[in-house]
Amino acid sequence: MTRWLDDYEPGLVERFGAFPVEREAIFAFARLYDPQDFHLDDAAAAANPLFGRLAASGWQSAGIAMRLLVEHRRARGDLTPVLAGAGVDELRWLKPVYAGDTLSLEWEVLEVTPSRSKPDRGTMRSRSTLHNQHGERVMTFVATELIRRRVV
Amino acid sequence: MTRWLDDYEPGLVERFGAFPVEREAIFAFARLYDPQDFHLDDAAAAANPLFGRLAASGWQSAGIAMRLLVEHRRARGDLTPVLAGAGVDELRWLKPVYAGDTLSLEWEVLEVTPSRSKPDRGTMRSRSTLHNQHGERVMTFVATELIRRRVV
Repeated sequence: MTRWLDDYEPGLVERFGAFPVEREAIFAFARLYDPQDFHLDDAAAAANPLFGRLAASGWQSAGIAMRLLVEHRRARGDLTPVLAGAGVDELRWLKPVYAGDTLSLEWEVLEVTPSRSKPDRGTMRSRSTLHNQHGERVMTFVATELIRRRVV
Repeated sequence: MTRWLDDYEPGLVERFGAFPVEREAIFAFARLYDPQDFHLDDAAAAANPLFGRLAASGWQSAGIAMRLLVEHRRARGDLTPVLAGAGVDELRWLKPVYAGDTLSLEWEVLEVTPSRSKPDRGTMRSRSTLHNQHGERVMTFVATELIRRRVV
């Protein structure tokens, strides 16, 4: 069932997902998008006082949050008609994400704003918080998406 | 030469990079981290009024900016001793990134702040702006990194 902008309300909270972070996926992402040595090499990661062992790029964690959100919408049978992402604020990397971690997402609607000029769309602001298998918050951000409205 | 936190000053601007965005790389990223249909399918992208044709995930664009920055530091021979990324604000996707685009980065230091409690490190805030081959700004964000200080 299509879930239009009109079907979301501030305060809605959903928790979902279980994404295993594999060592090879950390390397594959880092080689292409964040080739700093502590994402590519065990010894360099061990020498980093904030990591201590191989840790994923923070941008990979952001991608994992996005994937969990897209899969969740699909699994619900929602065809949330997202037009595009507009932006992200308050992205914080709170703890390292390690190989072998399993990540889940807590997602909360903050604000729903119909466009004034275009009656067929509007924006939704939401907070995504990624947790590891110990229940620790590892990353959080606030995203703004452009979503279609139900046109009656 | 190592470029410590102390070697950066607000107002420094550097422009660099030429990253070709390949169609297959758009698909590969989207399959793993942003499997929305307009990043995976030409017809769905064409039907999206904001894209019109296959466009990269915004998170892939962020990763490309990160890669350009890491490569630039390495190419300069800088071993900027980044400890970790702390966070990102004001991330905005301004225009679609299309297959065949070539992206370059404009990078500006905004703020350098030694830690009060830990004399060996501090934070640097910088603005990254990704441009396409037409000189259009396609993405911008402000990042905060934790960087080591020169310990004399």
